[in-house]
Amino acid sequence: MTVPTRADAAALDTADELAGFRERFVIGTGPDDPVAYLDGNSLGRLPEATAGRLRHLVEHEWGSRLIRSWEEGWVPLPEQVGDLIGTAALGAASGQVVVADSTSVNIAKVLHAAAGLRPGRRVLVAAHGDFPTDRYLVDAVASQRGLQVRWVPGADAVGGVLDTDAAALLLSHVDYRSAEIADLAGITATAHAVGALAVWDLSHSAGSVPLALDADGVDLAVGCTYKYLNGGPGAPAYIYAARRHHDGLTQPVPGWFGAADVFAMGPVYEPATGIRRMLSGTPAVLGVAAVEEGVRLVAEAGIEPIRTKAVALTDLLVALADEWLAPYGADIASPRDPARRGAHVVLRHPQARGLNDDMARDGVVGDFRNPDLWRLGVSPLTTSFTEVWHAMDAARDWMAARAGAA
Amino acid sequence: MTVPTRADAAALDTADELAGFRERFVIGTGPDDPVAYLDGNSLGRLPEATAGRLRHLVEHEWGSRLIRSWEEGWVPLPEQVGDLIGTAALGAASGQVVVADSTSVNIAKVLHAAAGLRPGRRVLVAAHGDFPTDRYLVDAVASQRGLQVRWVPGADAVGGVLDTDAAALLLSHVDYRSAEIADLAGITATAHAVGALAVWDLSHSAGSVPLALDADGVDLAVGCTYKYLNGGPGAPAYIYAARRHHDGLTQPVPGWFGAADVFAMGPVYEPATGIRRMLSGTPAVLGVAAVEEGVRLVAEAGIEPIRTKAVALTDLLVALADEWLAPYGADIASPRDPARRGAHVVLRHPQARGLNDDMARDGVVGDFRNPDLWRLGVSPLTTSFTEVWHAMDAARDWMAARAGAA
Repeated sequence: MTVPTRADAAALDTADELAGFRERFVIGTGPDDPVAYLDGNSLGRLPEATAGRLRHLVEHEWGSRLIRSWEEGWVPLPEQVGDLIGTAALGAASGQVVVADSTSVNIAKVLHAAAGLRPGRRVLVAAHGDFPTDRYLVDAVASQRGLQVRWVPGADAVGGVLDTDAAALLLSHVDYRSAEIADLAGITATAHAVGALAVWDLSHSAGSVPLALDADGVDLAVGCTYKYLNGGPGAPAYIYAARRHHDGLTQPVPGWFGAADVFAMGPVYEPATGIRRMLSGTPAVLGVAAVEEGVRLVAEAGIEPIRTKAVALTDLLVALADEWLAPYGADIASPRDPARRGAHVVLRHPQARGLNDDMARDGVVGDFRNPDLWRLGVSPLTTSFTEVWHAMDAARDWMAARAGAA
Repeated sequence: MTVPTRADAAALDTADELAGFRERFVIGTGPDDPVAYLDGNSLGRLPEATAGRLRHLVEHEWGSRLIRSWEEGWVPLPEQVGDLIGTAALGAASGQVVVADSTSVNIAKVLHAAAGLRPGRRVLVAAHGDFPTDRYLVDAVASQRGLQVRWVPGADAVGGVLDTDAAALLLSHVDYRSAEIADLAGITATAHAVGALAVWDLSHSAGSVPLALDADGVDLAVGCTYKYLNGGPGAPAYIYAARRHHDGLTQPVPGWFGAADVFAMGPVYEPATGIRRMLSGTPAVLGVAAVEEGVRLVAEAGIEPIRTKAVALTDLLVALADEWLAPYGADIASPRDPARRGAHVVLRHPQARGLNDDMARDGVVGDFRNPDLWRLGVSPLTTSFTEVWHAMDAARDWMAARAGAA
């Protein structure tokens, strides 16, 4: 193929059916703004609607209505926004998703819930290569409940260690480094074949890769909202629990917002029926409201067009990296088959840290990941083909200058 | 004493040394705004500075700087704001307080931490009358760790059940219903005498009643920030852990933000040194930033003047209730001695629910608490003596109309 030019990238932007969504986000061109933002997989951009929603929430709902706002709309927010995430991004019917707490806290909750649903089973299965919080919490929950952990290198190896001792597996749908997509449906079925539960971390896929949690029979899932769902820095995460498990669902932090009657304040904890029992404390109202605005845009655009554009963007990135960066020792450390690749691409380069830092100073924002990875995410509602082209062009210049100087 | 008139209340406002702080909050007079807001102990008012801080955070730090803001100020926020709370409200030297998660999650964390610090001891001590979340979590953590709970009616009864089996007690410093102040220093000393840890919930005192956690030898504490610290709806809570415990401090949700090196992402969890190990997931940036603005005002005003005004406000409320509402069957269900009373007053009345609802419709905002309590909080930085007078006057009219109709 011929190497795409800047004009080719601009033509792809012109033809992009999702281009209009870019206008719905705050994308500045001042000296403080990125020139190419390829880190929406760490922190998604700010939707215009979110800025307005938060102003209204702060100045009117908090400032004027004060405590009365709980009855005027805040109390149901965690379930309401959960349903929206379920519909827009997870393939989950209503009543199975709730927004609350951090992904870390939610992983603890779903692992305890899974162990509670499989009493007598003494093993959790997890992957060495998973995100740190996931691994730390598998270890912690196993220790707290007297379980053992069977570690596998990655998602594709769990089949070999799943047996009737296994209570549950915890895996990430999209790998936070390589972007490899796990076979969620197949692995879930394999787990079910031995009576184990499949628990998925969707942080790096929800909002960019289609999910069908209900159809695939997933038992429990968690994910963060500040990546492709554009919920904002440290926005609250979510929990999915399949309806068939609700009656037996327990969690380790029973708090007043998960009680059957929040304001009854009775002598003992009676969990709410349904997914609300996964709540603990008072919902983080600002955060949950911001998530709602971000997810609305995903719902409006539709996950299939988002996925199609993500593939086109990462295909362009891979093609340019192969052409321009491979000669300087940069390897694609993500799957080349787009069907197996999420919405980011990882390049391996011995000077990845310096590259990432220098690029960031020039407004090309990606992520460094230990030890030698430059991670570049595309966020289809906001990332343009021109941004991808510009980032690769800038990296080529950086590498050429270093090669020339060496 | 003669009954204070509206002019007397206005004169108290004129003489109020903290009156200037009221101007630093958004206090509207439109149809959506309360006429008398006596629920700052459920949700404190919006500081003017918070509205501006959040606008800047959203539009500039998130909107423009995006992921780079983590390095430009977000990462240290939980400890930075924790230190501010410690200094302004808790009597805690720096490095012992961190802002994160909900009060519920934090109660789970400190109870697990306390049990971990007292291995082999098999009892937790708690009070029947405590806030629901506190009770639910004592039960849950005891169950998770194979401990027993010794329940006492209230804080003053713990001395009778503390022995060398006790790992820890959990108590609220100020009772969420009666406003009674527990003898924090004395009870802590009693716990220490048998080698037990004292864990305190400061939700209803921090920011309105002086605390001296370091001087009093408190071991662990939690509290919420959306009451007297004016952090906003569902703002993140905090954890205090005395420095002497840090090396042995464990917690049940080890996540990446509590790891020694957040971005090392190593194979096993190594906790951070110091209080940061109590963090779990990604901090809720909007919430933590809002807390900082709220607490700054407490720091600037000083906790002693705040306490002095809280006593004066609740004294006025009690005097007017005795004069005007007692004849209609409303009893003061809070301590009459201001030295034993926090910054709210509870009135018992058989029609408390209807009273609360009708008053709220007329802009006099308090709280109903089961089964027959009307709870009225004063927030010294924002509550005026005139508001207290107005609320009692309106309640008198309501009761008089009902008595006349009966």
